[in-house]
Amino acid sequence: MAAYIEPKVLKGFRDFLPDAEIVRRSLIENIENTCRSFGFVPIDTPAMEYAEILLGKSGGETEKQIFRFKDNGERDVALRFDLTVPFARFVALHRTDLVFPFKRYHIGKAWRGENTQRGRYREFIQCDFDIIGSDTPSSDFEIILLIRAVFKNLGVDVDINVNHRGLFNRFLSHIEQSEKSVEILRTVDKLSKVGENKTRESLTDLTGNANANKILEFIGAKGSFKEVLERITELSGGDCAQSQRLSQLREYMLDACEDESNDPFILNPSITRGLDYYTGVVFETFLKEMPDIGSVCSGGRYDNLAGLYSKEKDSISGVGTSVGLDRLLAALESLNKLPAVNRCNTAITCADGEKSGQYQALAQRIRNEGVPCEVFTDPCGEKNLVKQFVLAEKKGFQYVIIPSDTPKNITLRNLKTRQNTELSLGEAINKIKFDLR
Amino acid sequence: MAAYIEPKVLKGFRDFLPDAEIVRRSLIENIENTCRSFGFVPIDTPAMEYAEILLGKSGGETEKQIFRFKDNGERDVALRFDLTVPFARFVALHRTDLVFPFKRYHIGKAWRGENTQRGRYREFIQCDFDIIGSDTPSSDFEIILLIRAVFKNLGVDVDINVNHRGLFNRFLSHIEQSEKSVEILRTVDKLSKVGENKTRESLTDLTGNANANKILEFIGAKGSFKEVLERITELSGGDCAQSQRLSQLREYMLDACEDESNDPFILNPSITRGLDYYTGVVFETFLKEMPDIGSVCSGGRYDNLAGLYSKEKDSISGVGTSVGLDRLLAALESLNKLPAVNRCNTAITCADGEKSGQYQALAQRIRNEGVPCEVFTDPCGEKNLVKQFVLAEKKGFQYVIIPSDTPKNITLRNLKTRQNTELSLGEAINKIKFDLR
Repeated sequence: MAAYIEPKVLKGFRDFLPDAEIVRRSLIENIENTCRSFGFVPIDTPAMEYAEILLGKSGGETEKQIFRFKDNGERDVALRFDLTVPFARFVALHRTDLVFPFKRYHIGKAWRGENTQRGRYREFIQCDFDIIGSDTPSSDFEIILLIRAVFKNLGVDVDINVNHRGLFNRFLSHIEQSEKSVEILRTVDKLSKVGENKTRESLTDLTGNANANKILEFIGAKGSFKEVLERITELSGGDCAQSQRLSQLREYMLDACEDESNDPFILNPSITRGLDYYTGVVFETFLKEMPDIGSVCSGGRYDNLAGLYSKEKDSISGVGTSVGLDRLLAALESLNKLPAVNRCNTAITCADGEKSGQYQALAQRIRNEGVPCEVFTDPCGEKNLVKQFVLAEKKGFQYVIIPSDTPKNITLRNLKTRQNTELSLGEAINKIKFDLR
Repeated sequence: MAAYIEPKVLKGFRDFLPDAEIVRRSLIENIENTCRSFGFVPIDTPAMEYAEILLGKSGGETEKQIFRFKDNGERDVALRFDLTVPFARFVALHRTDLVFPFKRYHIGKAWRGENTQRGRYREFIQCDFDIIGSDTPSSDFEIILLIRAVFKNLGVDVDINVNHRGLFNRFLSHIEQSEKSVEILRTVDKLSKVGENKTRESLTDLTGNANANKILEFIGAKGSFKEVLERITELSGGDCAQSQRLSQLREYMLDACEDESNDPFILNPSITRGLDYYTGVVFETFLKEMPDIGSVCSGGRYDNLAGLYSKEKDSISGVGTSVGLDRLLAALESLNKLPAVNRCNTAITCADGEKSGQYQALAQRIRNEGVPCEVFTDPCGEKNLVKQFVLAEKKGFQYVIIPSDTPKNITLRNLKTRQNTELSLGEAINKIKFDLR
């Protein structure tokens, strides 16, 4: 047996201490409640799967980043690196047990052996929601609306940037640059990072000066949703299924959010989601107060989700998104907008260890009223109660309850004002409850 | 790119479909709320750690079961196989940032490459709660009381079997069998599996007939808490620190649970927790209605939790327990006592796809009243609404809301009674809310 092992965590992995973990759980709970209110249901899948399944559609980049190994049975396994691939496998496996359209959310850890210098973590929580089995504009819209609700319920204003990948493809076809679409997408996707001049240079090298100008005109179209839609429709050859879908989405937005003074929806033709597998609408979400941290919720519509794992011929189209929890947490923290948490803020002092059973009985009556209450377990003696006041303050509590032989049985000490008040138990509970609100 | 990959999960790993996942999350939330009400706070640690750290104290059995591999940086890493070892490492690493006594809970996945034939899983959720930094009977008691509260809040009656590992050791010393304590513990631990006769045989082989009888008398002591305590105190040589601690625990139980008609606490000297690292009180919890499935919540007091990872000389004693979530879920399911869940039970039909924005606006008003509401996204036409009634029934919903041009604007259909009622939105919300209670 080793005598001493240095305690440390792997690079890119993190411990969460109580204060951070309480906030993280509360953020997740908030998002989860919003998903539930829309009738979305949770699923879970294993952290570890056959590597073949997880790597099925991926290129070399993913393969380099994935945690992959042989298990004790010599199976080639890996940790999931997102929740999308496992969802595709899940849908193929349980297709007959699911009711379509299927609206699910999934919150869970994923792992990537990424370069941690870019502020990324090797273990992170993903939070995905998708509607599959419905290729309607109304399901595109519901995902966008759910994004809006998620952030509204978190108390932050967002810009939801929407675009249609298919309309961009149609535009490229219209200017006869379809064969170069992969390179063009890759270039356009870097616009916000490298700036317009560099993008223009790259596009000119790729497609010539005239086409580069057209592409920049397309992705740079500005104005109201309606104005931008008219412009990019015209640039891509006129009215089509893709422009009609965007137009329908706009109608829905106006119908569903008519009381909205603060329109969160922007048609932004520069949003393409790079080389992702999206085929229809795509979207990225930016915090109004902190756009520079990048998109906190991105997604879009994809075709044939489970195709790789399915022998059935009819494909399952879907639309979904993923909240970047780490980025969002960091942003909320610096905006001082972390979600409120109902944490324990009251302790019962322990002067006399013999009385711990009575203290617990008292605590139970307080907890029964919905008020969390800690009982200090280490006796300090009647004269040293101040030690427990200090302990309670260190824990961030607001009150200590000192059981006493006074007529009302309770001394309630407010740790902020340092005032003691003699109260009955019922009075003390009401006072704490009042402050909890 | 592969054309078809068979969708399957690894042996011992599981998908959770919505119905199962909703229940599991609700069970976890229930347990978490109880922990919070006692002032326990959550932490999280990485799923993956240095293998050296996770294996530090373990023997060959763990090493065989653990998922261990070299990561892309050739580090020797492994997946955590419980939450106790990471907690020990966590405490050593963050000692100066924690306030002691530290009361934490931790709910998370762990992984073992176990033989799945025994009804065990290779991926499972652990749910641990511990108090560390306090070696008082009142903290032993608080853990026992928290176990009681966890199960009470789940609506199930339990027997909490308590014992003191130190008193058993003292007894073995009293009958001069201390050197054989490991073998004796191993034998006694199998009592419930192999029966008294086989245990007597093994103990006789090990310690001779007279000692075997004494051991069986000790572990077989029956009666009230007080009677058993008197008997085993006597058998181990009389009053001592260990018997006094059990006696103090009993006082606490009587003080804290005086209104209890149904005393859940049993002093059971056959509970030893085998070769576990416990040094003080130990406990196992059985469902009164289903004791045969085994302990659903076991734990005890241990010395020097973080010793292996700490250079500090003062050790941190603790007491804690772990809820067996899979076993508990299975039991609650067969007892028909799964926790109630507030799931979405209402959908808005979609006759006309053009109106999806209006349907969403309606849904938002319902959700604002705290009532979850799904909006169907695929238009079916006015004449085919019955298709959406069937869909809503498949989803287990109770109501569909059919927006209409009637004076009250809403037709509420109860899917169980198949009755339609014309209502205003407010009336419909009240009716659904009433049924949700």
